[in-house]
Amino acid sequence: MPALAAGVDVGGTKIEVLIIDESGQVVERTRRATPHVVTTPPGAATASVISEALLELLGDDTSLPVGLGLPGMMTHDGVLAYAPNLPSGNGADFTGLMRAHRPGQRFVCANDADCAAVAEYVAGSAQGHDDFVMVTLGTGIGGGLFSHGQLVRGRSGFAGEIGHMVVDPRGPRCPCGNRGCWERFASGAGVARLAREAAIAGRLPMLVEEIGDPEAIRGEDVTRAAELGSAEALAVVEEVGWWLALGIANLTAIMDIDRVVIGGGLTQAASLLIPAARRHLEGMVEGAEARPPIEIVSAHFGEQAGAIGAAFLAARS
Amino acid sequence: MPALAAGVDVGGTKIEVLIIDESGQVVERTRRATPHVVTTPPGAATASVISEALLELLGDDTSLPVGLGLPGMMTHDGVLAYAPNLPSGNGADFTGLMRAHRPGQRFVCANDADCAAVAEYVAGSAQGHDDFVMVTLGTGIGGGLFSHGQLVRGRSGFAGEIGHMVVDPRGPRCPCGNRGCWERFASGAGVARLAREAAIAGRLPMLVEEIGDPEAIRGEDVTRAAELGSAEALAVVEEVGWWLALGIANLTAIMDIDRVVIGGGLTQAASLLIPAARRHLEGMVEGAEARPPIEIVSAHFGEQAGAIGAAFLAARS
Repeated sequence: MPALAAGVDVGGTKIEVLIIDESGQVVERTRRATPHVVTTPPGAATASVISEALLELLGDDTSLPVGLGLPGMMTHDGVLAYAPNLPSGNGADFTGLMRAHRPGQRFVCANDADCAAVAEYVAGSAQGHDDFVMVTLGTGIGGGLFSHGQLVRGRSGFAGEIGHMVVDPRGPRCPCGNRGCWERFASGAGVARLAREAAIAGRLPMLVEEIGDPEAIRGEDVTRAAELGSAEALAVVEEVGWWLALGIANLTAIMDIDRVVIGGGLTQAASLLIPAARRHLEGMVEGAEARPPIEIVSAHFGEQAGAIGAAFLAARS
Repeated sequence: MPALAAGVDVGGTKIEVLIIDESGQVVERTRRATPHVVTTPPGAATASVISEALLELLGDDTSLPVGLGLPGMMTHDGVLAYAPNLPSGNGADFTGLMRAHRPGQRFVCANDADCAAVAEYVAGSAQGHDDFVMVTLGTGIGGGLFSHGQLVRGRSGFAGEIGHMVVDPRGPRCPCGNRGCWERFASGAGVARLAREAAIAGRLPMLVEEIGDPEAIRGEDVTRAAELGSAEALAVVEEVGWWLALGIANLTAIMDIDRVVIGGGLTQAASLLIPAARRHLEGMVEGAEARPPIEIVSAHFGEQAGAIGAAFLAARS
């Protein structure tokens, strides 16, 4: 099958570069470490590394469109306007930088969670669902929204920052400056914080005995204990699942979606969180009896979702 | 100028029916009381009243498209699936009912706040803003969302129920069953509740002295006192404005809008609430320095917004 497009996903630690065919299968791939070098102009070191990787996969052939997924708020013109997890890329004009490296090639840049949403819509867990939300659970929460079968990008390209929806204004401080953002409760950081709070409050005695210091308990410890059936750890997971459901109910009220696809790095915890969120969601959705059930499902694509989605996006735009 | 379309807005107390020309001017109008009669099939009495009003304005001429705005969750097929403020219309197939009255005429049905959003986008305060949110402040909060210049309707047609976004899960109970929905804080009901709480807590001594009973203080009393410059009443308005800004910041994070149009019945309070919300919004928006300022403006259309927007919607679809 002929190659369709190339896709690039720039993460905080690595850069994934691949080529997909028309069915979405990965036909070639390579990987680089993300350089964290402050350059003038910003993003130049990252663009050079991407360019090397593309040379490896494509040679001089500039006929395929290339999609780039980037970790932050991307403008419609391909500028990374705000990137708390890639400070060296803040303000980088990735479309311009890549064109300088490979004149004649077409580049399309977008937010990485938006790319993941495109992958799931075209060939993954959201096929046939024109109104859905992609939720990427990692340290924080990223999002990609589809409405009427179209990616919602917004005025500046910044739509889908769902992790910064405030769900408890008296809640814990978020690096964004607000209090009680959704990602303080329903992400990896949320699991870790709620686990620590439970440990300090004496609600995880067996885990504290095992680890020694309630302050040292991490999200992974709770997830592992919950998987082994610990009732006290399962109670923490249930609480995180409740917060996950709350944000999904909000997104349903606003966008009227019928499916939520959960992806991102928190895969292990997600297998426990998804059933917990399902248990709480139905009672939270306004007019639930008038709607189809809101399905919460796992992402089809794993860590290549961003790069595959970027390639689809480039092929479709 | 030739007539463009007819529009109907069904409210809890009255039904507004009008004809607009191509510039959006109202060329004819009439009004009826909303019948609250439970019928089989549901909505039959309301449809009869609308039909009489259309006969008055259009006679037998079925050439103009007719838009209907209805107070509740409307399916894409024109069924009022959930209508807490028009119980007699719950489950009514308004498209079907109207077609039976006026065969050959084209009917388009939508949620009333969605219709108001269309009116503001086509000819009001949101012209040229392809990504904006219409917020209708009344007893509750209604909403209409535009993304990429298109009305967001969602899977079932129910998008825009922004008043039921939960912003404080330990907050006051909402009739929808959840706690701390946005409309518990930033609507007419919110002003009334926060005013009563402030009065009972002794923070509105002058108003309590005037009215006699802290439990009897209504939202309008606070609004009036705030307009007269009462510092204690202004503090309540400021708090409501803070909540209004919080929900707008959430919608900005999710949808990346650049304009919010405030309409609905709470016009007098809105003239105080809008400046208060503006004061709080900027500090709440993630990545504010990377975006254009989010403008909060008053609706151009007043109480005819729903009917005018319904007419535009019918003409455009």
